Amino acid sequence: MSSLPTFADVQAAARRLEGVAVRTPLLENPRINDKLGGRLFIKAECLQRTGSFKIRGAYNFLASMSETDRRNGAVGWSSGNHAQGLAEAGRLLGVKTTIVMPADAPALKVANTRASGAAVVLYDRVKESREEIGMDIARKTGATVVPPYDHPWILTGQGTAGLELAEQATALGVTLDAVAAPCSGGGLATGVALGVKGIMPNAMVHAGEPVGFDDLARSLASGRKETNARLSGSICDALLAPTPGDVTFPLAQKLLGPGVVVTDDEVLDAMEVAFREFKIVVEPGGAVALAAALTGKLPVKGRTVAVVCSGGNVDHATFIRALQRYQPA
Amino acid sequence: MSSLPTFADVQAAARRLEGVAVRTPLLENPRINDKLGGRLFIKAECLQRTGSFKIRGAYNFLASMSETDRRNGAVGWSSGNHAQGLAEAGRLLGVKTTIVMPADAPALKVANTRASGAAVVLYDRVKESREEIGMDIARKTGATVVPPYDHPWILTGQGTAGLELAEQATALGVTLDAVAAPCSGGGLATGVALGVKGIMPNAMVHAGEPVGFDDLARSLASGRKETNARLSGSICDALLAPTPGDVTFPLAQKLLGPGVVVTDDEVLDAMEVAFREFKIVVEPGGAVALAAALTGKLPVKGRTVAVVCSGGNVDHATFIRALQRYQPA
Repeated sequence: MSSLPTFADVQAAARRLEGVAVRTPLLENPRINDKLGGRLFIKAECLQRTGSFKIRGAYNFLASMSETDRRNGAVGWSSGNHAQGLAEAGRLLGVKTTIVMPADAPALKVANTRASGAAVVLYDRVKESREEIGMDIARKTGATVVPPYDHPWILTGQGTAGLELAEQATALGVTLDAVAAPCSGGGLATGVALGVKGIMPNAMVHAGEPVGFDDLARSLASGRKETNARLSGSICDALLAPTPGDVTFPLAQKLLGPGVVVTDDEVLDAMEVAFREFKIVVEPGGAVALAAALTGKLPVKGRTVAVVCSGGNVDHATFIRALQRYQPA
Repeated sequence: MSSLPTFADVQAAARRLEGVAVRTPLLENPRINDKLGGRLFIKAECLQRTGSFKIRGAYNFLASMSETDRRNGAVGWSSGNHAQGLAEAGRLLGVKTTIVMPADAPALKVANTRASGAAVVLYDRVKESREEIGMDIARKTGATVVPPYDHPWILTGQGTAGLELAEQATALGVTLDAVAAPCSGGGLATGVALGVKGIMPNAMVHAGEPVGFDDLARSLASGRKETNARLSGSICDALLAPTPGDVTFPLAQKLLGPGVVVTDDEVLDAMEVAFREFKIVVEPGGAVALAAALTGKLPVKGRTVAVVCSGGNVDHATFIRALQRYQPA
């Protein structure tokens, strides 16, 4: 597809994902609603297979490939959720996957990726380029490169979370004023916007980013692709893409409202609220949209708002750090 | 009803709860399946309104009362999940509720119960009897006493979790060999058995209890109601009822297989697995059936098993204690 992906593409992806993706629940809490003076829903994608929404895009990508291409396998690079999503999608579809991961990635993430049957190639983060290694594998084996976000098949797969969310809200008799989703390269946020607006065209959709990694918010404001000054330094390890994608940015310009930007402390507090009030485990990057709603940066007062909590792959120490911030009233 | 409640009563309760109870997801994890050599599903009732399954029974009870009785209000006693479930059911149905709670109950639980609009009456755990206080309120105000488990309206309400679970398994093309649910007075376990067996008559259903509070397991073995030696002393604060109920026990004898009994350490480990692999927050009492499956006390090898994780109302310190038990391989 050379033109921008559409709602119909998200609907087609949803049909491919039927029985594969968990229909994650839309959660609500009367105490939080009272506190915010509106209605807040959480789409709990942390409960998705592999602990994040990434299986949606990866599976949709592999399922959209030709039979011949599938036989030659797929290759991707990621230290986190895309690795696990792609590996598991490969296992489910019988496609051989190779994942290029940093040698210093947490042992548990490497083990989880291998447990799905993927071949893991480790690289030196300082001396080597994962893109070069991945491209080299693709050239030598004929494997298809599966990008983490900047591809129509990926973002329309992620968009099925938005489609579901809007369907679930409709079943509750609710019309959403606004929806927000975490944003790294923009695959989830733009996909969700496509999915939501196909059902609720008047809903505003916003991308949430951590302070210092708000390339999309700044790009939307300036009208051109901006780049982050740093490559690391936020607790939101899943949201550090340096600049919007070539496919996702024009779609973001068309579909998204202004970005919302939150601090690491606001993210930790949102993780604690997700634990205490919603009983879900959310990783830092998965909690940015929730943090925006809880802090009022994304206003909920007098409105009906849904946020995507996109993943739950958080280590024990970080989660304990979030819980320890709680001060009983 | 003087005869035992039936599957049709659970179906009627499910109709009353439509749009009220969250259709909590049925979660699965391929790594845990590999490890156990079978298929394990979790019915995540910790994601239910008020953080536990208790809203199902309480709402079904209030909705089944006559208009006149509802106008006179309802009264119950509980320091935990039944309090919050009953208070919230009252709020939703416009029934005035009074909850008798111990004066030393956690401030957060008292506040949460009040936030649903219930009147909270505090009592001295050492010097006073909550039953007497509650019965006195009932006599003086005409309010109806809503028992925590030993009533057909309560247990058939809880049973809707089992009905849903069996429907969700059916939608996945799965037939369950066994189901287990946490057990205090037996309302959830017997209700779930009714709901599951109405759809999958050959599924074995088991009640999970903590060591020292296994009155139902011993009662099923001996054929008569046994009593626990202690009234406190397990981390599973929700599962300390001293003896099976008069309604729940005959139903348990008819429907349940042998009980499964787990230690507090096994419960803490199960809470950690629920965090790490399923991304849900489970309280100690809510994790006993999962603990039984993970330890092999409820065999999963070569079988398809579902466990109910019944609640997520756990304090920060206890959850941190569970997470700190994790030892990376």
